Amino acid sequence: MADIESRLGELGLILPTAPTPAGSYVPAIRTGSYVYTAGQLPFVDGQLPATGKVGEHHDLIEPAAAQAMAATCVLNALAAARSVLGSLDDVVRVVKVTGFVASHPDFTGQPGVLNGASELLGEIFGEAGRHARSAVGVAVLPLDSPVEVELVLEVA
Amino acid sequence: MADIESRLGELGLILPTAPTPAGSYVPAIRTGSYVYTAGQLPFVDGQLPATGKVGEHHDLIEPAAAQAMAATCVLNALAAARSVLGSLDDVVRVVKVTGFVASHPDFTGQPGVLNGASELLGEIFGEAGRHARSAVGVAVLPLDSPVEVELVLEVA
Amino acid sequence: MADIESRLGELGLILPTAPTPAGSYVPAIRTGSYVYTAGQLPFVDGQLPATGKVGEHHDLIEPAAAQAMAATCVLNALAAARSVLGSLDDVVRVVKVTGFVASHPDFTGQPGVLNGASELLGEIFGEAGRHARSAVGVAVLPLDSPVEVELVLEVA
Repeated sequence: MADIESRLGELGLILPTAPTPAGSYVPAIRTGSYVYTAGQLPFVDGQLPATGKVGEHHDLIEPAAAQAMAATCVLNALAAARSVLGSLDDVVRVVKVTGFVASHPDFTGQPGVLNGASELLGEIFGEAGRHARSAVGVAVLPLDSPVEVELVLEVA
Repeated sequence: MADIESRLGELGLILPTAPTPAGSYVPAIRTGSYVYTAGQLPFVDGQLPATGKVGEHHDLIEPAAAQAMAATCVLNALAAARSVLGSLDDVVRVVKVTGFVASHPDFTGQPGVLNGASELLGEIFGEAGRHARSAVGVAVLPLDSPVEVELVLEVA
Repeated sequence: MADIESRLGELGLILPTAPTPAGSYVPAIRTGSYVYTAGQLPFVDGQLPATGKVGEHHDLIEPAAAQAMAATCVLNALAAARSVLGSLDDVVRVVKVTGFVASHPDFTGQPGVLNGASELLGEIFGEAGRHARSAVGVAVLPLDSPVEVELVLEVA
């Protein structure tokens, strides 16, 4: 069993309380050896740090800012998973990351944005954090969030 | 085993026959303890009740109408699941709802639209209907449908 | 156990080497009896055959071309699966296909595009290739790819 909770401390990461869903659902579900998280927005203390579409133009969310928000989505997803697991030490591996980036139609750098999620999972879980991933650019996300990330985790 | 088939009757809900896929695939697949449904459109008697993008402007699909269509997608998804299960009494829990809303780029109320799906699952399955959910706003959906919903179910 | 590797030969299909991910993730993950592939772009020898949005207008990617690219995505997804399985003979069934089509907002033929993926899976796997599927039209995809496809496979 990996000591993921200690690892969070070493990295100076403090998970938020599990986010309140934006609708009639729950933050995460355990089923058999898996946890599915809801799609997570980059809430910090209940607020989105920015809203809008991601792209290179001056009135859009900069890709680097969106990348940081993808990492925040992961922290919220892990908080959601912990809320059903008790401890993240029960995570065997990260299976799948699906990331949606609210994108200006000219913006094609979704993989770079999602690296903010993937690299944080690598720092926290090491080899067990390696995952399959899909990244897509969508027209708009709930509450005009620039990024939304969901996880599938294998658990003990 | 929950008596879901009776519950449908109490709620006055009649599932349609399993929808005909819009392409070379099947309405639902059972694998191990899970059923994955195909993405469901809000067909009623083989017709979409409306087409277009969802939003607040006068030429768009109203969010309340889209919310009702999300519930119709759930009925179609349950019909698809029943077609491989025989009876919905075999459903142990709803695991995941993924909802796509064809959205005007200004429309950020996807969670409200998807509540039409989530709340109906709650009415039908009670506690076992609580699920993780992702809602995203996409550019366009097959046949210009305003909404598409897919389910993952845990089954006995 | 199906003899899928021989079947590929009969069809004259040669899988590429597993595609290099566009970010900090892996092409596929095995977990229990399942393989999840990453979202696959239609790379051929490391290049996208075309970029842009799919639609009927003259400056867009033609639906027939996008349909062929969806088949290429499947070949890349199967190469990714083989990289973690060793042999595709271990595939018990295709469970789920999720397909994203970078779409002009007027283009509603995503099911036809994804039939390029579904029909190839049928040719390769026969009955075991029948799958649930979701097809959506998104604003833009990584590297301006017209199509992205991911698979969930049940494996022995």
